[in-house]
Amino acid sequence: MNVEGKHYRTIWVKPEDDKVIQIIDQRQLPHEFKIEDLKNVDDVARAIKDMHVRGAGLIGATAAYGMYLAALEAPENNFDSYLIEAGNKLKSTRPTAVNLAWAVERQLKEINNKKSIGDKINTSRQVANEIADEDSDYCRRLGEHGVKIIEEMHKKKNGGIVNILTHCNAGWLAFVDYGSATSPIYNAFEKGIPVHVYVDMTAPWNQGGKLTAWELGQHGVPYTVIADNAGGHLMQNGLVDMVITGTDRTTRTGDVANKIGTYLKALAAKDNNVPFYVALPSSTFDWNMRDGVKEIPIEERGSEEVKYAKGLTKENKIETVLLTPKDAKAVNYSFDVTPARLITGLITERGICKANEESILNLFPEHKN
Amino acid sequence: MNVEGKHYRTIWVKPEDDKVIQIIDQRQLPHEFKIEDLKNVDDVARAIKDMHVRGAGLIGATAAYGMYLAALEAPENNFDSYLIEAGNKLKSTRPTAVNLAWAVERQLKEINNKKSIGDKINTSRQVANEIADEDSDYCRRLGEHGVKIIEEMHKKKNGGIVNILTHCNAGWLAFVDYGSATSPIYNAFEKGIPVHVYVDMTAPWNQGGKLTAWELGQHGVPYTVIADNAGGHLMQNGLVDMVITGTDRTTRTGDVANKIGTYLKALAAKDNNVPFYVALPSSTFDWNMRDGVKEIPIEERGSEEVKYAKGLTKENKIETVLLTPKDAKAVNYSFDVTPARLITGLITERGICKANEESILNLFPEHKN
Repeated sequence: MNVEGKHYRTIWVKPEDDKVIQIIDQRQLPHEFKIEDLKNVDDVARAIKDMHVRGAGLIGATAAYGMYLAALEAPENNFDSYLIEAGNKLKSTRPTAVNLAWAVERQLKEINNKKSIGDKINTSRQVANEIADEDSDYCRRLGEHGVKIIEEMHKKKNGGIVNILTHCNAGWLAFVDYGSATSPIYNAFEKGIPVHVYVDMTAPWNQGGKLTAWELGQHGVPYTVIADNAGGHLMQNGLVDMVITGTDRTTRTGDVANKIGTYLKALAAKDNNVPFYVALPSSTFDWNMRDGVKEIPIEERGSEEVKYAKGLTKENKIETVLLTPKDAKAVNYSFDVTPARLITGLITERGICKANEESILNLFPEHKN
Repeated sequence: MNVEGKHYRTIWVKPEDDKVIQIIDQRQLPHEFKIEDLKNVDDVARAIKDMHVRGAGLIGATAAYGMYLAALEAPENNFDSYLIEAGNKLKSTRPTAVNLAWAVERQLKEINNKKSIGDKINTSRQVANEIADEDSDYCRRLGEHGVKIIEEMHKKKNGGIVNILTHCNAGWLAFVDYGSATSPIYNAFEKGIPVHVYVDMTAPWNQGGKLTAWELGQHGVPYTVIADNAGGHLMQNGLVDMVITGTDRTTRTGDVANKIGTYLKALAAKDNNVPFYVALPSSTFDWNMRDGVKEIPIEERGSEEVKYAKGLTKENKIETVLLTPKDAKAVNYSFDVTPARLITGLITERGICKANEESILNLFPEHKN
């Protein structure tokens, strides 16, 4: 999508040097738009682990490019096991997003099919590009399906503004382009349907206030930032027409693991008859899982993310400030699971379905076992 | 309760000068323990509006002392109307807490009953002291009732630690002493029942991470700070035995207006069969209201509270940092309403009752009309 009027993706091969991958260092947003070079698999692992990049789709694409850089640096006499090790290193960086393991496995499989080192390297670049293109394409297509829900609401409101609440950043910054939750919104915006987005701040990392607010603003979509605590009140008072979030992992039964706090918004939506949609490219499905609460591993991050906030000082310096007592104990679960029973529908690249196994498998029959 | 081993209330008449009121400037906590002098009614209005003091009970007590300072400074030839004006000024500072108007009205009524200026001034001081003492006493007593619930849970868990989640600061810092939600917890702690408190950060003002964490820590009660988004996940995974919150205004039917986000925790508690209690001295009842969502006015504060976070820099300076894009729009509703249907019980100074009119009026029969 657009940054200061110019189109960007979130990850790409450096035009001047195809042995280097470039990303937007999202830790600096919204205060600074900084492009970062990744030159080896360790750079990539660090970029994922320390959240220079984040978001289900982008983590997958970044890991795919990481495997390409691993292929470039692998020693000829130990090529295959070096790549397996590199894949394990990448997979260990973030446990919840299923795209990460999926991208690594796809790379390993395709690379294994080639004989020569040269072919293996070429294949790894090609597969990384494919994964990135697919991610962008899937997100674009799910937006074309999802926009219909927004159009219907616009008609139901007699041409009124459609107010959409979203949590975290499931925007183009979380994918390669378009985003998941935001893709129907960008599509509606391009069509001239009046939309307005309530952006959950999404503490402790504040992806909503930092990233979703920034990307919507750069693209020109009207939005209002709210504290994570405010969504229930807004829904109780008829100020939200629908909720659309993303997901980091989706079971075949329609449970979704998404940024911590999503479950609370789903409960509020249910209690106030507000439709609650989850938008996802099918790469976030984990076809082996049936019970999200019991089976999806929930990442626990450092407690300092809860205790400190990072932002811009009056002197335009990015600084971290302590919010709690210095010796406070804190815990930092990064995701929670929203059970399928709270979800109105899943918006995928193949269409919209209900959050249950039958409806999901109607769209994705190849996973019927 | 204790600060560095010494007992404090949140407000008192300055021992060396009884024309001055002293408070703890809560804006500096948890980083600095600073006592502030309030010398006139304008100081008091500013202290309430700008949240040097906050919390239902403490706002009431502070307003009561504000009326005493107003009586001290009122001109003899215009005494009564000066006090009415001062009362209006104080009442306009924060719209949601019912204690504020209640304390002002009680002062005006009692002062009006006196003839001489001297008697009026003495009465205003006496009534302010009474209101503060009552607040402390009611909180202490509700703790004696509420502790029984914690004791029962402790037994039910075969002597295990009782994990209590709380939102915002309904601690002694929100009252004159003991607190509402915290009073049963302090009582249990003093009795040697093992308790542990999950403290919601409570964005945007972070009263939980700043104040509740600080006061629990100072008194020695084990706690863990969590992002507001985390409570649903904790309850879903059996990590919370009960929720206890405060309330800023309670209808006669048992709806409660409390810090924004309380409603979301009540929904999560309901969804996971976790008991959800609200603790309140009866001064927070608004006996004229029956429908919390429709009738309780919800304060909207400045959007900068959402966009910025205040904390301590590495150089031990309290600084405010911008979290969102500079030009981001934000809204800041301060309270939400939790409907009675989500509340397991109300813990009051007269005992525990269900959140419905009949049960409430059984404890408070004098309000049966």
